Amino acid sequence: MSLDLDASYLQKRPANFRPLTPLNFLLRAADVFPDRVAVIHGEQRFTWREHAQRCKQLASALMHSGVRSGETVAILAPNTPAVLEAHFGVPMAGAILNTLNIRLDAAAIAFILDHCEARVFLVDKQLSEVAKAALEIAQVKPLVVDIEDPLAEGGERIGTLTYEELLRKGHAEEPTYWPEDEFEVISLNYTSGTTGNPKGVLYHHRGVYLTCLSQLLHHRMDSNSIYLWTLPMFHCNGWCFSWAVAAVGGTHVCQRKVIAEDIFNAIEEHGVTHLCGAPTVLGMLIDGAARTGLKLTRPVAVMTAGAAPPAAILRDTEALGFTVRHVYGATELHSVTTLCDWHREWDDLPPEERSHMMARQGVRTVVTDAMIVADPVTLDPVPHNGAVMGEILYRSNTGMKGYLKNPQATEEAFAGGWYRTGDLAVVHEDGYVEIKDRSKDIIISGGENISSIEVEDVLFQHPSVSYAAVVAMKDDRWGETPCAFIELKPGPANQVTQEEVIEFCRAHLAKFKVPRRIIFGPIERTATGKVQKFRLRKLVEQVA
Amino acid sequence: MSLDLDASYLQKRPANFRPLTPLNFLLRAADVFPDRVAVIHGEQRFTWREHAQRCKQLASALMHSGVRSGETVAILAPNTPAVLEAHFGVPMAGAILNTLNIRLDAAAIAFILDHCEARVFLVDKQLSEVAKAALEIAQVKPLVVDIEDPLAEGGERIGTLTYEELLRKGHAEEPTYWPEDEFEVISLNYTSGTTGNPKGVLYHHRGVYLTCLSQLLHHRMDSNSIYLWTLPMFHCNGWCFSWAVAAVGGTHVCQRKVIAEDIFNAIEEHGVTHLCGAPTVLGMLIDGAARTGLKLTRPVAVMTAGAAPPAAILRDTEALGFTVRHVYGATELHSVTTLCDWHREWDDLPPEERSHMMARQGVRTVVTDAMIVADPVTLDPVPHNGAVMGEILYRSNTGMKGYLKNPQATEEAFAGGWYRTGDLAVVHEDGYVEIKDRSKDIIISGGENISSIEVEDVLFQHPSVSYAAVVAMKDDRWGETPCAFIELKPGPANQVTQEEVIEFCRAHLAKFKVPRRIIFGPIERTATGKVQKFRLRKLVEQVA
Repeated sequence: MSLDLDASYLQKRPANFRPLTPLNFLLRAADVFPDRVAVIHGEQRFTWREHAQRCKQLASALMHSGVRSGETVAILAPNTPAVLEAHFGVPMAGAILNTLNIRLDAAAIAFILDHCEARVFLVDKQLSEVAKAALEIAQVKPLVVDIEDPLAEGGERIGTLTYEELLRKGHAEEPTYWPEDEFEVISLNYTSGTTGNPKGVLYHHRGVYLTCLSQLLHHRMDSNSIYLWTLPMFHCNGWCFSWAVAAVGGTHVCQRKVIAEDIFNAIEEHGVTHLCGAPTVLGMLIDGAARTGLKLTRPVAVMTAGAAPPAAILRDTEALGFTVRHVYGATELHSVTTLCDWHREWDDLPPEERSHMMARQGVRTVVTDAMIVADPVTLDPVPHNGAVMGEILYRSNTGMKGYLKNPQATEEAFAGGWYRTGDLAVVHEDGYVEIKDRSKDIIISGGENISSIEVEDVLFQHPSVSYAAVVAMKDDRWGETPCAFIELKPGPANQVTQEEVIEFCRAHLAKFKVPRRIIFGPIERTATGKVQKFRLRKLVEQVA
Repeated sequence: MSLDLDASYLQKRPANFRPLTPLNFLLRAADVFPDRVAVIHGEQRFTWREHAQRCKQLASALMHSGVRSGETVAILAPNTPAVLEAHFGVPMAGAILNTLNIRLDAAAIAFILDHCEARVFLVDKQLSEVAKAALEIAQVKPLVVDIEDPLAEGGERIGTLTYEELLRKGHAEEPTYWPEDEFEVISLNYTSGTTGNPKGVLYHHRGVYLTCLSQLLHHRMDSNSIYLWTLPMFHCNGWCFSWAVAAVGGTHVCQRKVIAEDIFNAIEEHGVTHLCGAPTVLGMLIDGAARTGLKLTRPVAVMTAGAAPPAAILRDTEALGFTVRHVYGATELHSVTTLCDWHREWDDLPPEERSHMMARQGVRTVVTDAMIVADPVTLDPVPHNGAVMGEILYRSNTGMKGYLKNPQATEEAFAGGWYRTGDLAVVHEDGYVEIKDRSKDIIISGGENISSIEVEDVLFQHPSVSYAAVVAMKDDRWGETPCAFIELKPGPANQVTQEEVIEFCRAHLAKFKVPRRIIFGPIERTATGKVQKFRLRKLVEQVA
């Protein structure tokens, strides 16, 4: 006798094994909630039927424009409907979506366009200047498309056609691309990482699909959820909410700028229920509320991550009426893989203790298989005592495929069979993780990563600089900003001022990467010539 | 230039590609909510730490008892902690869980034990009589284990050891089995189907995992959810809630019997937030409330399926304070794949219209790729006009692997590349599906399938019966019960009464399968000798 479970008739077949893909979320939303508003942007409204129609038109138009499966479509735009449409339309053409950080300078944009071999470049008109400059530097010659957003301010046309003209070339009824394997690439997100050149993180349909379900479940979203875009859509595809909102048939509310008044107004006008943001956004809400007297009339859930949020910020945000959910993840993990899953028993703690509980990064999400904090060398997990530090490591279906064209960095990222975050944390007795020291050299400013090495590279280019080291400096507005330590070359000709160095950086770096403070003097190094940055950070704390 | 997306370093690796399995939910619940109550049963309480511990002990004990990967462990028990433990403990031993319908007769149980080649048979003491009778008939000689539930009434020990003795043979710290492929079998659920012998539906880890996430998302469950077991755990593994509750770290409340008073008491005592049940259960709640005056003090979500619920029942259930969610699916689809996803606009409809909206089966769940209603022969989808009927077909990751040892029935079930439900429905203009006629011959009584052919087979065995046909008859309590049409053999010796026929059936069938009504007389057949059951159903309606 035998159960013969390996018999051929029990193998996978198209009726019981389908690629997991977020593309299905859009089709379902259009079927189930066709007349519900999917996207709100200023005076614009798109229902799910219209949104799906436009996404399919975009897919068709891209295919008619010669975009082939596995090629890249880049987009440089603030949080607008076109970016949401690209999240479905680009993969529905079989192409890879690359959403660019709108704060990047021309050189960085050019590097990325070349690196991903962009075939099409969609540009919000307001960002035409930097895009034009990037295109002049870049080797690739993508089809350039101007997004004429009605709320864009200034800018000029630099493209071959407008976004609406592109859409009109497409036909919504044409068949679109569908992944054959759920591990196929869906999008590409560049992270500055710890080295100078940005690395292209490859997302897959499976990882996005599971992250979407996890985000919706942990953040308790449903078809009545109204999601406000205070998180950049270019940041890990908006923590996958660009796709996830479709899965429940909720509503997107776009915002080009993140301003406290606009946020409170949108909450009031559209009945916003959920939003995400770096602690910087929380700080802005706290300041804005104090300044304007604006208040919430009903609770709004805020997911925050991107830097360890000070407990005081969490406390003050909750005092405004927001329900704070603290999450953690990485670009390489399709965004959120950890959250401070709340115990109702903590509700009764005094506010300070409650905020400290909430400031911990917490535990793995439901779709994350394994998260450990371990010795980076031996991979032995640290004891759960709140004291011994280790590196946060993951094994998860939300792990990236790898870095585009970068096998070495990919192998390093997965060294030892785990995704290495580079973040150091302790594990408390209750199993909740708390980050104690972020990866050595990353500076997180307004939720965006700044590689200290990239800034150092620029400083080293200054003719008077002999040595430079950049570390994070606390900043009330941005969370962190770069602070540079500089050793000058000897001689009176090299006596430059802080202003001159900052001016030099401005010419070579995106504005947000420019150091706010320069400290001149000798930089202590180890016997092997390495700078110990934790010492420099202590120095910064002392002088700040 | 090329992106080289097929490069070896971008392939799946253990750090970014893990088998989707509900087993992970248990480990996470034990890590995140170790001290929260996982299971309530009478005076018993198990925390998630204890529950996980017992599941691991069970897995270890089964392996030490010689159970090998791919072998079956059967369990015959009402909704008790042991069944929940088996949902994790059995697959953690690499074995297949077979939960038996506790209303089956000895012959049916024996058939199943033999068919699945049961290695271990866990039996609730109260069900020892039928289990013992089944074991006497069965060919297989499984290890029999007595579950001595403190709330069991009567029964005797029939096994080699008790369940607690078995657990003590296991060690929670031993490594357990983990699926290598998410398409591996996790459980086996027998359905009576349309033919006489039950068919064994093979569930896979991937299908269970996705169904769990879908159930939690659509039914808005979280770590504060208290789930009451009014649905049999043996029914599609309790619509996968046996596993799903662990994914959020909620609480199970067990119930051996489904009695209105007990349900209202449990809701009050334990703060129940969610429960599931056939419309029969809703009817019981309505009657119970009318009889006892019991009321809800806060809203409770009720998921109902298993038979098209009369709109009046939905209306009356909502009037009691329950939030009704109407769902639909099949044993072959890991349970629920369709739900009447609610439009908030319908809240304002008059109660009658609102109930009619809710009585529709609705639309596919978020994890269901495709559901169509189509001509069963051409597979052309029917127009969305609320009039043309077609068969409901699915392509979904929640499709079963197939029927155990039954390639022919499996190919029939997936004929044309779709899972064929055999249920006939219309599609309304808004895309919502409504079942108009269920598959030709299945009778659904109290949420359980009864094969009319099986009942006919028994009737045909009666010495006086020359022909028999069984169809569903509406029943206020059970939804449907079997009604038998009988042609008697000629001659005075064959003049039997309704009572005598029913008595004969009782001796050969589980009680719930026994026809409640016998109609004597000639049975119209087609030229090819087939009975047109829709005509018989009309006759029953006329005489009822």
